[in-house]
Amino acid sequence: MVEQPTPHLIRVRVRPAYTVTVGAGVLESLAANVRERRLALVSDSHVGPRYASGVHDALTAAGAQVVRFEVPAGEDSKSAERWLELQRGFAREGLDRQAAVVALGGGVVGDLTGFAAATYLRGLAWYQVPTSLLAMVDASVGGKTAIDLPEGKNLTGAFWQPRAVLADVRTLSTLPEAEFRQGAVELFKHGLLADPALLGPFDHGFAAGWPEQALAETIARSVAVKAEIVAQDERESGVRAHLNLGHTLAHALEAVSDHALPHGDAVAYGLHFAALLARARGLSDLTPRTRRLLDWERPAPLPEVPFDSLRLFMARDKKSRGGRQRFVLLEDLGRPVVVDDVTQREQERAWDELREEVGP
Amino acid sequence: MVEQPTPHLIRVRVRPAYTVTVGAGVLESLAANVRERRLALVSDSHVGPRYASGVHDALTAAGAQVVRFEVPAGEDSKSAERWLELQRGFAREGLDRQAAVVALGGGVVGDLTGFAAATYLRGLAWYQVPTSLLAMVDASVGGKTAIDLPEGKNLTGAFWQPRAVLADVRTLSTLPEAEFRQGAVELFKHGLLADPALLGPFDHGFAAGWPEQALAETIARSVAVKAEIVAQDERESGVRAHLNLGHTLAHALEAVSDHALPHGDAVAYGLHFAALLARARGLSDLTPRTRRLLDWERPAPLPEVPFDSLRLFMARDKKSRGGRQRFVLLEDLGRPVVVDDVTQREQERAWDELREEVGP
Repeated sequence: MVEQPTPHLIRVRVRPAYTVTVGAGVLESLAANVRERRLALVSDSHVGPRYASGVHDALTAAGAQVVRFEVPAGEDSKSAERWLELQRGFAREGLDRQAAVVALGGGVVGDLTGFAAATYLRGLAWYQVPTSLLAMVDASVGGKTAIDLPEGKNLTGAFWQPRAVLADVRTLSTLPEAEFRQGAVELFKHGLLADPALLGPFDHGFAAGWPEQALAETIARSVAVKAEIVAQDERESGVRAHLNLGHTLAHALEAVSDHALPHGDAVAYGLHFAALLARARGLSDLTPRTRRLLDWERPAPLPEVPFDSLRLFMARDKKSRGGRQRFVLLEDLGRPVVVDDVTQREQERAWDELREEVGP
Repeated sequence: MVEQPTPHLIRVRVRPAYTVTVGAGVLESLAANVRERRLALVSDSHVGPRYASGVHDALTAAGAQVVRFEVPAGEDSKSAERWLELQRGFAREGLDRQAAVVALGGGVVGDLTGFAAATYLRGLAWYQVPTSLLAMVDASVGGKTAIDLPEGKNLTGAFWQPRAVLADVRTLSTLPEAEFRQGAVELFKHGLLADPALLGPFDHGFAAGWPEQALAETIARSVAVKAEIVAQDERESGVRAHLNLGHTLAHALEAVSDHALPHGDAVAYGLHFAALLARARGLSDLTPRTRRLLDWERPAPLPEVPFDSLRLFMARDKKSRGGRQRFVLLEDLGRPVVVDDVTQREQERAWDELREEVGP
């Protein structure tokens, strides 16, 4: 076995606490991290063929009995139908409460598998092996699992913490570049919220092709930001709302485009929008930074819609409270605040500015 | 409004803690207990027509906006299909995280609705209004919610504590007598486990027709027994196993009869079986008491099956650990122990005794 560089360990202080391990080659330590002897290994049709056999063999060699499940790659698999298939599959294989589930893949596999683990026999232990940048920096911390309904995304789910997360940066080498960029937007957001050092990479050609060590270090810092926020607010009733920076507009853009606009692109626009709102209020001007993110990320074109259509979707945002539209704004780098007094006029003006800057 | 007798309040010390209120007419205090202003009221086709309109009107009069849902009465409604219907219905009605769910009905409605509340938007507050004796003494404490899969009962679910439980003994006046007896078996079990005073009623014509005050007092004592056990072991990893008294054989009898034998009947047989096992081991002889329960409860005939078929189902019991069959036995009244060394021979002998006593 090749000697591995020391991985980064980030402790997520929720109940129960767990560790996110980020490094090159950490996938090889999965078997040593999993204590259960009966396992369901869930992956998808993209990631499965690449990594599932190796993982399966390593777990089996360590003495576990492993059943494999594979769902089609893509958001459509975050459905009640796939969830039910997993529940029934677990039951047919006779998995009992001493068994555990391993989610091997990106955000879709993690959300679906986590929810399946959360509900089967009222909750099995599970391990998350994120293989996309987005899943590593976002879904690996917080215990949010979910499926979509025809009525909307992530409407059904559970908070269910994994027992451990192993993020192997080597799996990023096979990730499409566009997906890497999508994930990087959330990492940038973590930089804005709490760790300006995370903004540096975007001036230095941040890419999946970076040296493994630098990649692991950057991802680990991003995970640490989210871990700190989530530990303060496990059930999303307070400070965790800060993670929503850029997401109020983003969710509206996704909805209005019928999810044709990818999430990362939408958040990149949303971060710039929030910076424009903040600047207009006389807060610190972070628009040069968020503008640089847009240049780096190269999002798909901004949907051409009047502000009124967006407004309707923003009002429906599930994080709104008692009908008041809430925004996360940055007073300065690392100083997020939640405000609920942003007027329609302010929003419309920021939208117009955004369109002028980046629109067609 | 008629003056109501003082209800019994039992505090369930789980996280977060909540109160079970047992009394005559407590349904009328529901609106005062519910703090959310948007509610989904879920009932079934038996209970709904009797009580849902009154509850709906009281909640509406108190200022809440209430949407009603009704599922067909019966165990078949504990399905993934009904659960999904509720999820989609909640979404179509635009329920947000500030909304809550009220489950009005017996065990099926409580289990299904509780699971729907546990998963919609990753968990809404919910209130339980049990209208059957079984739901009052069993499902009202413990936060266990679930649906059935084609592969087996209660295989998918969540631990999700209600915000409050209101058990109105007046709703028992419309409960079929057979269902009352089914529920009484669990109450008897609580008596065996921790409160011998609960065994007295079975010598004194315990029935739904009892004076309301006596009924409420008895049910409240039973709820208190379960509340005490559950508080010690919220996630069912230790002492909560005691509640499984009588259930190892019961689950096998239900399975082998393809669920034709009702749960309460099966548990009544299971309690006597456990007493026979204990007596044969030289523990205190409680068979006269469990025999009296059988005489009172008048279960459907014992399935005529060889012990070997039962053995297979018992081995599959989801509470077995590492393949070892576990039984709860009573060393004496109020002194349950979990043992995993009951031999096949002992079980077979107790089964033969049971058949001789009560078989055809």
